[in-house]
Amino acid sequence: MRMPSSNYRFIIAYDGTAYAGWQRQSNGISVQQLIEDALAKIVGAPVRMHGSGRTDAGVHARAQVAHAIFTTRHPPATLLRAVNAYLPDDICVTAVKQVPAKFHARFSAKGKEYRYQIDTGALVDIFMRRYAWHHPRPLDLPAMRRAAKLIIGRHDFTALSANPMRVIDSPVRTVTKLTVIRRGQLLTITVSANGFLYKMVRSITGALVKVGEGRLTVAQLRELIAGKRRTALVETAPARGLFLWRVRY
Amino acid sequence: MRMPSSNYRFIIAYDGTAYAGWQRQSNGISVQQLIEDALAKIVGAPVRMHGSGRTDAGVHARAQVAHAIFTTRHPPATLLRAVNAYLPDDICVTAVKQVPAKFHARFSAKGKEYRYQIDTGALVDIFMRRYAWHHPRPLDLPAMRRAAKLIIGRHDFTALSANPMRVIDSPVRTVTKLTVIRRGQLLTITVSANGFLYKMVRSITGALVKVGEGRLTVAQLRELIAGKRRTALVETAPARGLFLWRVRY
Repeated sequence: MRMPSSNYRFIIAYDGTAYAGWQRQSNGISVQQLIEDALAKIVGAPVRMHGSGRTDAGVHARAQVAHAIFTTRHPPATLLRAVNAYLPDDICVTAVKQVPAKFHARFSAKGKEYRYQIDTGALVDIFMRRYAWHHPRPLDLPAMRRAAKLIIGRHDFTALSANPMRVIDSPVRTVTKLTVIRRGQLLTITVSANGFLYKMVRSITGALVKVGEGRLTVAQLRELIAGKRRTALVETAPARGLFLWRVRY
Repeated sequence: MRMPSSNYRFIIAYDGTAYAGWQRQSNGISVQQLIEDALAKIVGAPVRMHGSGRTDAGVHARAQVAHAIFTTRHPPATLLRAVNAYLPDDICVTAVKQVPAKFHARFSAKGKEYRYQIDTGALVDIFMRRYAWHHPRPLDLPAMRRAAKLIIGRHDFTALSANPMRVIDSPVRTVTKLTVIRRGQLLTITVSANGFLYKMVRSITGALVKVGEGRLTVAQLRELIAGKRRTALVETAPARGLFLWRVRY
């Protein structure tokens, strides 16, 4: 006999600076753990959340998505207020909604958008220090945009990801959008794909920045991607500039 | 005989969250103290800086101005790099310039601009939590702008400041600009004046917000200012939303 149960979808913003990442783990406090613990107090039973995917230590989320199944029903507005009352000020559940039982935050996801912020000022903007990679050397934007065009599309992204052992299925992903926009001293890289490999956005960013510095040509990047092997030519950009921006269902 | 000496002007950005304010004091770490200590290491002698004015605990600065006189000469670009190397990541000296001996950061100032940020979202924007007052109740912007018009001009600002014992000279100041602008869920109050009394911007903000909430009428505010007395009707807005934006010379 099936227990009566309700599936809830949560949208969550967090400043990842203080955390060991999204996913519950033994070597540090995770965002998932704090939300699960808060929800457990509210529903009076252990709660297991399923996120749309991991984010690494120090990575932020504007709109991470997760679901959890409760055997008791709760008005979503009440859950929203209650969970935020238990959370620290660098995590905020921004929406709660009851969803069909078949909704799964990870398996139902059709794609994601990430944004990466680079502070290109000669001097750091201290108010952005937690949310941008300070990179004071000049960057060739047109070259970065030519490189971005190369990355858009369906490719084996092994060369632009880390630790391929983590790849369970295939390293092929389709990047549908990749833009490089400057506003004042802040440069924002936006990347959308049907899925992401481990450290893929930070690797793409690292490669684009290297092209922008003139230390990697667009032709070399093309070869690199075709080689399907992670090499020392690609550097991973720091976590602090990265935001999980939205998950598409 | 006069010692040969050089006067240097510093422009300084700081996130005030972790500090007891600008001014050196016994009950907490101040921004001034950290910069003076950093400069002392560089010039090899105690350094006394003079800021354009105090900022309270938790208040930020985009461009605080200070000067210091050294008996030794240092290329400004070298001073800039060296002082930032000694400073924590929430303080940044953004400019150093040698200035005439008669320049005094406080006494030469002709006026200042402050900005106050209010997060009006139903839910807090966690990425702005250090830099805005979260005020989720609706605000009547046209009413706030009518109140702002009343404040612009030359007035005795005793009613819109705190602790008048600190006023040495006169409580009369001239507000030359006071705007209330909304962009998304962020509301920014910008105020320029030839000088500011203690907690004047936070009191003006508190009064404008009270008008915006409909808890204080524009007519009441007019009487309040004319009364030249601080009353419980005016509440002081929290420090975290306030930025010393620029000092005019």
